[in-house]
Amino acid sequence: MAATRQLHLGAFMRPVSIHTGAWRYPGALPDANFNFAAIRRYIERLEAAKFDAFFMADHLAVLNMPVDALKRSHTVTSFEPFTLLSALAGATTRIGLVATASTTFDEPYHIARRFASLDHISEGRAGWNIVTTANPDAALNFGYDSHLDHDARYVRAREFYDVVTGLWDSFADDAFIRDVDNGLYFDPARMHVLDHKGPELKVRGPLNIARPVQGWPVIVQAGASDPGRQLAAETADVIFGAESTLAAGKAFYADIHDRMRWYGRDPSGIKILPAAFVVVGDTDEEARARRAHLDSLVHYDSGIGSLSSQLGYDVSGFDPDGPLPEIPETNAGRSGRERIVEAARAKNLTIRQLAARAGSYAGLAFVGTPETIADGMEEWLVERGSDGFNVMFPWLPGGLDDFVDRVVPELQRRGLFRREYEGTTLREHLGLARPANRFFPASDRLVAA
Amino acid sequence: MAATRQLHLGAFMRPVSIHTGAWRYPGALPDANFNFAAIRRYIERLEAAKFDAFFMADHLAVLNMPVDALKRSHTVTSFEPFTLLSALAGATTRIGLVATASTTFDEPYHIARRFASLDHISEGRAGWNIVTTANPDAALNFGYDSHLDHDARYVRAREFYDVVTGLWDSFADDAFIRDVDNGLYFDPARMHVLDHKGPELKVRGPLNIARPVQGWPVIVQAGASDPGRQLAAETADVIFGAESTLAAGKAFYADIHDRMRWYGRDPSGIKILPAAFVVVGDTDEEARARRAHLDSLVHYDSGIGSLSSQLGYDVSGFDPDGPLPEIPETNAGRSGRERIVEAARAKNLTIRQLAARAGSYAGLAFVGTPETIADGMEEWLVERGSDGFNVMFPWLPGGLDDFVDRVVPELQRRGLFRREYEGTTLREHLGLARPANRFFPASDRLVAA
Ligand SMILES: Cc1cc2nc3c(=O)[nH]c(=O)nc-3n(C[C@H](O)[C@H](O)[C@H](O)COP(=O)(O)O)c2cc1C
Ligand SMILES: Cc1cc2nc3c(=O)[nH]c(=O)nc-3n(C[C@H](O)[C@H](O)[C@H](O)COP(=O)(O)O)c2cc1C
Repeated sequence: MAATRQLHLGAFMRPVSIHTGAWRYPGALPDANFNFAAIRRYIERLEAAKFDAFFMADHLAVLNMPVDALKRSHTVTSFEPFTLLSALAGATTRIGLVATASTTFDEPYHIARRFASLDHISEGRAGWNIVTTANPDAALNFGYDSHLDHDARYVRAREFYDVVTGLWDSFADDAFIRDVDNGLYFDPARMHVLDHKGPELKVRGPLNIARPVQGWPVIVQAGASDPGRQLAAETADVIFGAESTLAAGKAFYADIHDRMRWYGRDPSGIKILPAAFVVVGDTDEEARARRAHLDSLVHYDSGIGSLSSQLGYDVSGFDPDGPLPEIPETNAGRSGRERIVEAARAKNLTIRQLAARAGSYAGLAFVGTPETIADGMEEWLVERGSDGFNVMFPWLPGGLDDFVDRVVPELQRRGLFRREYEGTTLREHLGLARPANRFFPASDRLVAA
Repeated sequence: MAATRQLHLGAFMRPVSIHTGAWRYPGALPDANFNFAAIRRYIERLEAAKFDAFFMADHLAVLNMPVDALKRSHTVTSFEPFTLLSALAGATTRIGLVATASTTFDEPYHIARRFASLDHISEGRAGWNIVTTANPDAALNFGYDSHLDHDARYVRAREFYDVVTGLWDSFADDAFIRDVDNGLYFDPARMHVLDHKGPELKVRGPLNIARPVQGWPVIVQAGASDPGRQLAAETADVIFGAESTLAAGKAFYADIHDRMRWYGRDPSGIKILPAAFVVVGDTDEEARARRAHLDSLVHYDSGIGSLSSQLGYDVSGFDPDGPLPEIPETNAGRSGRERIVEAARAKNLTIRQLAARAGSYAGLAFVGTPETIADGMEEWLVERGSDGFNVMFPWLPGGLDDFVDRVVPELQRRGLFRREYEGTTLREHLGLARPANRFFPASDRLVAA
């Protein structure tokens, strides 16, 4: 079946891997969360494989787990995304650089500046993963006694986005005339003072940096609750989906496109890239055995901690071999909790089984030969379950090398993935237009640099 | 006269130069504030010359000037320090990287994380220039209607410092045991939960990153008012002084050392590095002519804008050829205003003359041949007016090249400046000890890496 569309591939990274057992896997680098040189090698390989983007997850606290689980987790220490991605910008020339930043615990002026600066430094490769921060422990690190309400976080996020994009538009692209003879550095008529006064935020502007190379850095969104989807439909260029079956993926894909049309956006302006955990083997069986080995490295204390963290509720006191009891609604991420509760009911899983899934990776996984994995990815693309994937490597560097050396060539052979970058910016890799400046629509540069 | 001590040299940078006329100087790069490659070349030259540190000034708003001045200023756009210095970390291996960050408009958890991350990425080269942000326009970009009170800003700064350094001490250096067999990543007994509850800040911790390579990144302070000096005496590793005569420099140097003794700190734990504007020529006369040419490139509208900004009070309406009238006390930086008012009185300067000084650089300047400049620097060092300098280049790249190619060799010839780096961290360049972890004093690594 000839695919007219092509896959977009992001690498969803934590330095040691997303998987909590990965640091114990043979050949893994358990110190990668201190080791900049290792991460530089990872991104160099991903760029050589023509990935659209390197995506850095982020959390504003150590993950909230009981200490018996936490002490087994390599996630307790990691680089901060802006410093890491900026350093990686200097080591790369083409791959997109997506940083996670929270609208709940940061200021729009800071966020607008940093992404604009990263976009200038990287010559148009920055992306912002907007999160509202589900981890309630984060609030305690920012002066609050308890977490902010889920819906209130999304209300602030929406206004935050308006302010940040408004700040990015502070200067017309042609504002900086640099007329040496007359001593005129820029044309003040081409500068806009935002003067935002909203219910949540008051920000005057202008931003003290020129408009980003991409106009606006690429907006990424991963919240899956109803307000999360709505925010994405209104604002996102890329969605990191979390559906684990093709049927659910297709429903999600259609839902987002419907919401976009309803809001007045053309659905071609968004790329939906579900997170996908990929384990490669010489045979499907070998791949499954490798995954089973990896999962066996998750200690029960760690799995139950991940489960409690994902539920936003401590379940370590319940009978491991009993069913999941009724969990009260909390302020943490809603969609994650619902997915777990549904799976527990549908498959009659015990707490022990849920813990194993939580400490491992419970979402969409492609486990098999390069051909099996390419078949699965192609099916999602063709059936419109997605526009590509955010690949999670089960362990590093081995799992990344397997994907780059074996799966990417198979996808290229099928005409499903680029062999060379065509553009230079992340927007160009993703086939997304450069947004017009809302205050100076006529000044926009052509997309070609 | 044989100097036993050596100079420490920082480069105090804005991409185009500190001087507001510099972008018009022949050979200058007026677009350097968009041009990462240019800044990379600057830092590579400074590292080859064995500078202690590259220091990035920062402001959280466009400088508050009337638009007739602003439009002539290259400072209206610049990179954000964390993204810039992180990108530069990847391009260098030895030179220190000092970023300015505000205690008034940021969160201690963010600041602690970013500096820790920069310190890990750069392998021990990060420094934090603590500022309380004198520009009142910054407040308007962060939700406030007016600027915070000067003294209140310093009260918050002091507590902010305690929280940030406490967060840096979240983990003992030996906390991360990474015991693969037993699945134990770190020893929870070697993690400290700060649980800070102070009058200004409430921050739980722990920080989600390992202790910085330097223990704590180098603390730099430039506030010169009484609370600014006190903060420096209690907390700083480096002070960026702003005294413009040797007599004032010696008094400042002695005052800081007195305050340190009073507070119980050994004065050898601080390095006082006044800002110094340096213009090199083949003869002293030629150097003065170059400076005069540079100053002539400052438009009157720009000079009067700089003066108003430094005074925190708009003086553009007064007679340019009359004296400076009484200026009411404002909430902006106090010490800068006092210095201008004193100079105006002492030298009977008109507003036009003050504007020319403000748009140029009114502080300490060494203008002459490499020998003249080295004589001046040596005198300050020997007389204990300073421990070195933060050099401001009048224009770039020319002024930087002149310093590196001509002044540095003269300082080296006199035995006043290193020919090679001896250590690898910024603390080692400055001869400063690695601070003990306040919660785990026995776990500290030896200074040698
Ligand atoms: C693939 C993926 C990546 C995510 N990355 C982050 C992250 O790095 N940091 C974060 O705080 N939340 C992250 N989230 C959580 C989401 O932002 C969101 O909080 C969560 O999916 C719950 O959805 P809700 O907030 O709409 O209820 C991620 C979610 C997904 C599906
Ligand atoms: C050499 C030097 C560099 C400075 N750099 C900055 C800077 O980058 N950003 C900033 O907001 N303030 C900067 N300042 C201002 C000081 O932090 C301080 O606000 C000012 O000297 C007024 O002192 P005071 O706040 O104690 O009244 C600098 C001052 C000096 C002397």
